[in-house]
Amino acid sequence: MRDIDPQPGSLDLPGPYLLFLGDTVEEGYAKTAFGLRDWASERCVGEFALPGASVTTGLDPLSPAAAYARGARALVIGVANAGGVIPKSWSGALVEALEAGLDIVSGMHARLAAVPALAAASARLGRRLIDVRSPPPGIQVASGRKRSGRRLLTVGTDCALGKKYTALAIARGLQGRGVDAEFRATGQTGIMIAGSGIPIDAVVVDFVAGAAEMLSPDAPPEHLDVIEGQGSLFHPAYASVSLGLLHGSQPDMFVVCHSPARTRVLGHPDYRVPTIGMVIEQTVAMGKLTNPAIRCVGISLNTSGMDEAEAEAELEAAERATGLPAADPMRGGARFGRLLDSCAA
Amino acid sequence: MRDIDPQPGSLDLPGPYLLFLGDTVEEGYAKTAFGLRDWASERCVGEFALPGASVTTGLDPLSPAAAYARGARALVIGVANAGGVIPKSWSGALVEALEAGLDIVSGMHARLAAVPALAAASARLGRRLIDVRSPPPGIQVASGRKRSGRRLLTVGTDCALGKKYTALAIARGLQGRGVDAEFRATGQTGIMIAGSGIPIDAVVVDFVAGAAEMLSPDAPPEHLDVIEGQGSLFHPAYASVSLGLLHGSQPDMFVVCHSPARTRVLGHPDYRVPTIGMVIEQTVAMGKLTNPAIRCVGISLNTSGMDEAEAEAELEAAERATGLPAADPMRGGARFGRLLDSCAA
Repeated sequence: MRDIDPQPGSLDLPGPYLLFLGDTVEEGYAKTAFGLRDWASERCVGEFALPGASVTTGLDPLSPAAAYARGARALVIGVANAGGVIPKSWSGALVEALEAGLDIVSGMHARLAAVPALAAASARLGRRLIDVRSPPPGIQVASGRKRSGRRLLTVGTDCALGKKYTALAIARGLQGRGVDAEFRATGQTGIMIAGSGIPIDAVVVDFVAGAAEMLSPDAPPEHLDVIEGQGSLFHPAYASVSLGLLHGSQPDMFVVCHSPARTRVLGHPDYRVPTIGMVIEQTVAMGKLTNPAIRCVGISLNTSGMDEAEAEAELEAAERATGLPAADPMRGGARFGRLLDSCAA
Repeated sequence: MRDIDPQPGSLDLPGPYLLFLGDTVEEGYAKTAFGLRDWASERCVGEFALPGASVTTGLDPLSPAAAYARGARALVIGVANAGGVIPKSWSGALVEALEAGLDIVSGMHARLAAVPALAAASARLGRRLIDVRSPPPGIQVASGRKRSGRRLLTVGTDCALGKKYTALAIARGLQGRGVDAEFRATGQTGIMIAGSGIPIDAVVVDFVAGAAEMLSPDAPPEHLDVIEGQGSLFHPAYASVSLGLLHGSQPDMFVVCHSPARTRVLGHPDYRVPTIGMVIEQTVAMGKLTNPAIRCVGISLNTSGMDEAEAEAELEAAERATGLPAADPMRGGARFGRLLDSCAA
């Protein structure tokens, strides 16, 4: 995937990256590192782990100094841990990275500068500590003005079921067909993958639609921004994030992302996951405020854990229910090709 | 109006107030002071103006020391000025207030503590500088859990057309009938009037529904929170604020506020103001997520600038169009009585 141009109001990350794995022994904690390896391999020069770590991305193990020599300009914390804190046992390695000339990029809840050793070393060495959960300065209130170029937004029936990977797969698939498409990141992993973006859920609510406007600025008529969705209009806590992103993005097209196995909203078991049809109807009803031409162009199903026949049955059912192409981008194939056709039409 | 109990996550203001008018000569800049005089007279002991001011609330002119002797515990900046800055010419008077034992409360964009003389004096004297645009700490992500007690939310066809005053008038009117009703403030003027609340539009978007939940906590079955609405679901910049407030408030009832003279969204002339019917339909469609029993109980029209016959014609038309009682709370009368009947039913 090509690097995107940094936007006013966007975070702009240094790179390429050295992926830091800490002392992690659980694969599930290294999702960020695996995501970067899979989706931003051209931004990753190697990995760096502490003694005791058993997780690996398969990239070359490199010291910070060796990574710098190969072109790395940032160490990215590619692992999470319980509580989102930065353990003391990491400090020495992170200071070593700063001393080797790397900035540090983190998507953890804890702020890098809250670790005294990192704050001191970064000040002494003139290096940056970048928390990708912190929105950049300069975000404005939305104008509502129609922008040039085209936009596609991934929306969902819930959180955490494939909106980011769907947007990445569509952007990459269209780029492969020669379409002038760019992935626009709205969450921390997406921002690390793209090297730029705005963590939309961390923006003050008055400015959230404005942040979405700045993320996908005026563009040539045929240009397509593929915008990573967040939350769901049917989420009791995060619908507000989804609506601000919808209004500010002014999408011409949207793709509904759904996980057939998910029947209850993640973390809110009193709430049923809406149907795909409900999400299409409500997204059009709300989205037409800022783009009267908004339309649904397809369905992305997360069929992980299903065998081929089960997945095929779910995809077939989704197509029948909506009359729109349905695919699991992770499975690719002819179905995904038809979803891309619909996005390119 | 009774003081409300401070809530966890709510700002809790000291009082009573001395209203500061600065050197203001334009009545339009003193809306906060007039609002406090009209809606929170029991919280106001007097006014304090600089030489050259020509605006007055009609309250007793008092020095900070005299106000403190009469019980005042906070000086409230009751005037705005272009740019929302705190002019240098105010510094001496504000420091005098701190020295007299008053905290300072401001709803301006500029932070009080950004004025070096105020920061120094408040630190030296142990006084508080309270910016009511700053959300309190401790706001959680919304749970979506149904709370006990009853809730009414004012919603609007646009910003700045009477949602705050409608909520205040309904709360006060129902209190006058012996209903256990409380006004819940979501904007800076409302917070100053109530002495408590959360500036909802300044909350990080991930937490906005959670803030609304904390603003109107579990209550006895007959208790009614009357919640000040913000923005509009049809506003290209602020719909996200309105949706988070709607979902977190879980209102049983809502009243639509509208200004018949307003045809274009304030500050967004490319956008038409929606009809009352559109707002009812969309508020029910979205609000039923967290409260399936949500219903519209009436219409509040801002008929300022109209003569009696014009206002009556507008109110009659709104009733005919919606089948619901319509009133201008500022005009009171039998129409407002019927709106209260509907809120109490």
